[in-house]
Amino acid sequence: MASIDTVLQKIDENRAAALARLFDLIRIKSISTDPAYAEECARAADWLAKELTGLGFTASVRATAGRPMVVGHAKAARRDAPHVLFYGHYDVQPVDPLDLWKSDPFDPQLVDAADGQKIVARGAADDKGQLMTFVEACRAFHETGGLPCDVTVFFEGEEETGSPSLPQFLADNRSELSRDIALVCDTNMWNKATPAITTMLRGLVLEEVVIRAASRDLHSGMYGGPARNPIHVLAKIIADLHDDKGRVKLPGFYDGVTELPEEIAEQWRNLDFDADAFLKEVGLSLPAGEEDRSVLEQIWSRPTCDVNGIVGGYTGQGSKTVLPAQASAKFSFRLVGKQNPQAVQDAFRAFVRAHLPEDCRAEFHSHGASPALQLPFGSEALARARRALTAEWGKDCVLNASGGSIPVVGLFKRELKMDSLMIGFGLDDDRIHSPNEKYELSSFQKGARSWARILNALAE
Amino acid sequence: MASIDTVLQKIDENRAAALARLFDLIRIKSISTDPAYAEECARAADWLAKELTGLGFTASVRATAGRPMVVGHAKAARRDAPHVLFYGHYDVQPVDPLDLWKSDPFDPQLVDAADGQKIVARGAADDKGQLMTFVEACRAFHETGGLPCDVTVFFEGEEETGSPSLPQFLADNRSELSRDIALVCDTNMWNKATPAITTMLRGLVLEEVVIRAASRDLHSGMYGGPARNPIHVLAKIIADLHDDKGRVKLPGFYDGVTELPEEIAEQWRNLDFDADAFLKEVGLSLPAGEEDRSVLEQIWSRPTCDVNGIVGGYTGQGSKTVLPAQASAKFSFRLVGKQNPQAVQDAFRAFVRAHLPEDCRAEFHSHGASPALQLPFGSEALARARRALTAEWGKDCVLNASGGSIPVVGLFKRELKMDSLMIGFGLDDDRIHSPNEKYELSSFQKGARSWARILNALAE
Repeated sequence: MASIDTVLQKIDENRAAALARLFDLIRIKSISTDPAYAEECARAADWLAKELTGLGFTASVRATAGRPMVVGHAKAARRDAPHVLFYGHYDVQPVDPLDLWKSDPFDPQLVDAADGQKIVARGAADDKGQLMTFVEACRAFHETGGLPCDVTVFFEGEEETGSPSLPQFLADNRSELSRDIALVCDTNMWNKATPAITTMLRGLVLEEVVIRAASRDLHSGMYGGPARNPIHVLAKIIADLHDDKGRVKLPGFYDGVTELPEEIAEQWRNLDFDADAFLKEVGLSLPAGEEDRSVLEQIWSRPTCDVNGIVGGYTGQGSKTVLPAQASAKFSFRLVGKQNPQAVQDAFRAFVRAHLPEDCRAEFHSHGASPALQLPFGSEALARARRALTAEWGKDCVLNASGGSIPVVGLFKRELKMDSLMIGFGLDDDRIHSPNEKYELSSFQKGARSWARILNALAE
Repeated sequence: MASIDTVLQKIDENRAAALARLFDLIRIKSISTDPAYAEECARAADWLAKELTGLGFTASVRATAGRPMVVGHAKAARRDAPHVLFYGHYDVQPVDPLDLWKSDPFDPQLVDAADGQKIVARGAADDKGQLMTFVEACRAFHETGGLPCDVTVFFEGEEETGSPSLPQFLADNRSELSRDIALVCDTNMWNKATPAITTMLRGLVLEEVVIRAASRDLHSGMYGGPARNPIHVLAKIIADLHDDKGRVKLPGFYDGVTELPEEIAEQWRNLDFDADAFLKEVGLSLPAGEEDRSVLEQIWSRPTCDVNGIVGGYTGQGSKTVLPAQASAKFSFRLVGKQNPQAVQDAFRAFVRAHLPEDCRAEFHSHGASPALQLPFGSEALARARRALTAEWGKDCVLNASGGSIPVVGLFKRELKMDSLMIGFGLDDDRIHSPNEKYELSSFQKGARSWARILNALAE
């Protein structure tokens, strides 16, 4: 097996050809949301399978009820190497509104800018540019003596439509896809110069509550006073869910919430994150969450309870003197650490029931529940990937988190019992899903080098 | 002038003809909500003006932008008699759904029942039957020596459409319509055997509040924690508006709320009102208002605060992880006694502003404000009308109240500075606005006798 320097040099030599290959992939209009582009999606899958085959993979396109999957396997040059699964998606978002694009979204352009060249096109970042960083790393290994790890590549074509075929496909192909660790390339760097690994994703419990009182809407002149108002009951429940320090008051809610290792906490404190600017951009000035936590902690590592929607009574123009028979609200709980979604749901429902006055009933609907996903901070794979990224970029790799969810990571955990390293080279300003999507050329080139270093480090 | 017994005897002699006249009026399809019936409304107005003319009134039909008004004046047999204004409305509700009627709604039927005969038709009670009780009383006076009071009769044809022409008409005809007292005949008896005068109407302050936080809707994964949630802010405001004894917590809210005279309070306590049945009929079992007040007090003589509608965030099917930029609610305050609507509005807005955390703004919309209307319990006219009704029905006349509003009474007070005696002979089960509307024959016959006694008593 070649030294890592040889592999990196090969990647650099391949730069122009690599960019041409990415452009070829981008030109395929693999929009998954519009059935009119189903054929283009199939073309993209074929293109990728052929690429992988050319790099020594045993690759195939697998039909699903929707867009096809691509799966490829390649062995390491040596025996007993670790076996990684790489995940990316070849489907892209629609391009509307087309008139806001400065160039044809499917005719990729390399655009000069003061801070470096950018690849502009639909899918340049999300996720064709990202996934091709890994393919190019594999190519360099292939051309210099072989892969350091056993590699399974898994490309999906329905990520932008909510991955309807994915759970069944994973369930049907568990033994083929369940590897030592997953490498998921669909996230961002901390900034243009600083790599990041996303190690925590908050979980989610989605609950809807309908509070009912009278058997029908009542006239507030005739019944106002004695009639129980379900909007008031619901408001009291919502008001009582937080204390005046921003903490959630559900009994047992913080069970399983873990504190950050001091090293991570210190890294977060030292990040050049401008909380004021973050809030100001959306018209806010003061964080509203737990008052003893920083904004980054509030988003990344602390659980929340929010009402996402509420409705009851008359909501049209003007007024109506109605006492409604019911009122309802949708609640979401973001979970962290080892919080148990079932326990949170149970605690919430018990809390609501305990708040119901005479003559009120509560009806509950669950809209989903998933635990937080946390890669153990002590994970050896994490430490190796982090060192590899730090070496490539010359900046300490940030171990960040995501306040939202990345469904495929949860599916890998649930269906394949596999942890994921979420590593990507996108930037917050890449305009994914929007006109003039771009990917930094440096992300593409150094992304490929990063994967080479990571695969090498994982195999050491 | 004839004795009251002579007048009452004349009313009894006229019974059959009086019913035939009411049936003639009912047959005119004076539906005010549907322009297709404008001609029928005009016919009803003409019919009434002609009736009044036949009874010695100087009567005329007055055009408005909508349906015409009818105004008639008649002098008392003696000088210096009090001058009353009688109000009723000749327009009726639409008849849909027609297939639920057991007979043609405009072909009045006298239907036998175990508890007495009923007149069944659209408008039988609301308000043709009611207003004709007064016309028949006037006829009996006319046929027996003249009226005891100066009488102005005022019939409206737009009550069922919210009286759009009424305020201007009153303003334009103040000196002609402003009399010593108004007799408004559009309310109910306490029960089939017990007369009632409605002496109190609750006032109303209608406020809408929009709470805004972030400049746009936010993703709860990316912002959940630090982002202020306006639904939570609104819920806290609503929750804080009442204490745990059901009292409204707005500072100064109870200023001007007067206690009932003990005589009235005792009458209410002794009424055969089944609070349990009243609540049970709408699926409730316990009154939710001020805990030291009876249900009748809560509806009739105590002020309230209710949210009539609330909306914010996502309210469709399923879930959406959104932190909304705004949430809004519609509030209504029912006022009693001398509560000042402006002071209540001011206190409410100050209360909301005092509850706003950092980064939140409140926008207010008023949807109307009107004070409570209360006929002074010491009023001489009230005492005389009450004695007259008690004499006719042989049961102590109830001085009740209405939790809702009767707009014409407020307009008479504001535009004409005139108090109203609200006296009517309807029953709660008259099905006004519904199929098979009915009016008790006893209400029609004894109603006419009641008015004769009342006019006589007011003139004494």
